[in-house]
Amino acid sequence: MITSTTNKQVKYVNALIRKAKTRREEDLFVAEGLRMCMEIPKDRIRTLYVSESFQKNPECAALVKGVRHVETVTDEVFKALSDTQTPQGILALVKQYHYTIDQVAGTGGDGAAPALLMILERLQDPGNLGTIIRAGEGAGVTGILMDQDTADIYNPKVIRSTMGSVLRVPFVYVDDMKGALEQLKDKNIHLYAAHLKGRSAYDKEDYTGDTGFLIGNEGNGLSDEIAAMADTYIRIPMAGQVESLNAAVAASVLMFETARQRRG
Amino acid sequence: MITSTTNKQVKYVNALIRKAKTRREEDLFVAEGLRMCMEIPKDRIRTLYVSESFQKNPECAALVKGVRHVETVTDEVFKALSDTQTPQGILALVKQYHYTIDQVAGTGGDGAAPALLMILERLQDPGNLGTIIRAGEGAGVTGILMDQDTADIYNPKVIRSTMGSVLRVPFVYVDDMKGALEQLKDKNIHLYAAHLKGRSAYDKEDYTGDTGFLIGNEGNGLSDEIAAMADTYIRIPMAGQVESLNAAVAASVLMFETARQRRG
Repeated sequence: MITSTTNKQVKYVNALIRKAKTRREEDLFVAEGLRMCMEIPKDRIRTLYVSESFQKNPECAALVKGVRHVETVTDEVFKALSDTQTPQGILALVKQYHYTIDQVAGTGGDGAAPALLMILERLQDPGNLGTIIRAGEGAGVTGILMDQDTADIYNPKVIRSTMGSVLRVPFVYVDDMKGALEQLKDKNIHLYAAHLKGRSAYDKEDYTGDTGFLIGNEGNGLSDEIAAMADTYIRIPMAGQVESLNAAVAASVLMFETARQRRG
Repeated sequence: MITSTTNKQVKYVNALIRKAKTRREEDLFVAEGLRMCMEIPKDRIRTLYVSESFQKNPECAALVKGVRHVETVTDEVFKALSDTQTPQGILALVKQYHYTIDQVAGTGGDGAAPALLMILERLQDPGNLGTIIRAGEGAGVTGILMDQDTADIYNPKVIRSTMGSVLRVPFVYVDDMKGALEQLKDKNIHLYAAHLKGRSAYDKEDYTGDTGFLIGNEGNGLSDEIAAMADTYIRIPMAGQVESLNAAVAASVLMFETARQRRG
């Protein structure tokens, strides 16, 4: 049992919560809370931290079962470990995922379902990213492709707002977005950009084939270089004086229109 | 010019920023930033606070023109007034809006456009509320109806995330949600509830007539009493293991499906 908040593991977990660089170096991320921890595949958990109070929780036994490394800590130590105001007393260090571009395109598998890729350029808000991943799983995306300027998917705010979807939706960060988009085009994935220059209303296009949507930065949209990679510019027709939608809303409208068309 | 942060106006503005009760009593709300302040109708502005630095902004003259009460303050005082980390130097006290249920239903007007009402029960997250108002204007809602347990629309976080839509979309808070829904049903507005019990996929319904969507609390959904008021339960079909969508995403998918159908 860890009883001191000066224990070096506290510092280690805090760094994993706060710093993308530490997460990358350690190839780990931090997931908190009962529901989230129940959804993590056991073999991905490197360490599970359980507070004394949480040990009395009837779900605790099932959670720790099969986990190689469990640390019990006092409630005070848990509070020091945790990123939340009112911690539930359960926190996991989880091995990071490593998907390929083929995997996020979904065509690396049996090819039964057409690709539905969300391609994010410089998306900065962790809440928006998490919301897109959660909605994306619901809409049936094959994966998420991001540039290095997009928020870190392992940021605790992103993890929380995905409600577990981060454990299931394939994603990849690429250094060379243009090169990655060329790879997708070689696979005959049709790239659509939500863009002010779009003349075609989004719901007039056919998304039943292999499809990728380019979504840009909250304030500035897509860069010209990346927008130029799109096969088709689309727009979401807008009433009133609204110029643009929140990035997660725009992405969701496009993803669910795709899902609607594919249900037929 | 106000030069002291102990000036009583600083305390007054801070209270308006922080407390819904003060805003209600004073019938005012606070709007910050250049873009936001440019969109406010001049006759709604009770006081416009301008920092010394902002006075050098070329937009300043147009902004203060026609405003009855302008206060210049030092940059230090402005920082004390403001709700933001890096204030732009322009902040307005604005008269609150007072719409009726008829106005949010849109049928109080010429009746040319069918009603599209978003009805929010206990929606707690200010960001979600702001996002729904912004997306709602874009999708062409006639208005937003909310119960008293929904977040305060004049919360600065909501104001910010509406990107100005709060100045244009009619909204009303009701004490008696059930009674308000009865009024809407008397007007033949068809009420749909996004609900786990929904058997009909949302995109199989016809929203070209007068339509209202019931959206519930982020964690718990609609209360049984309010859900029972719906004419039709609908669901957004979901892939993967996602049980529900973020409230603002669910609302947006429904609003833009309505807009899509109404464009034909």
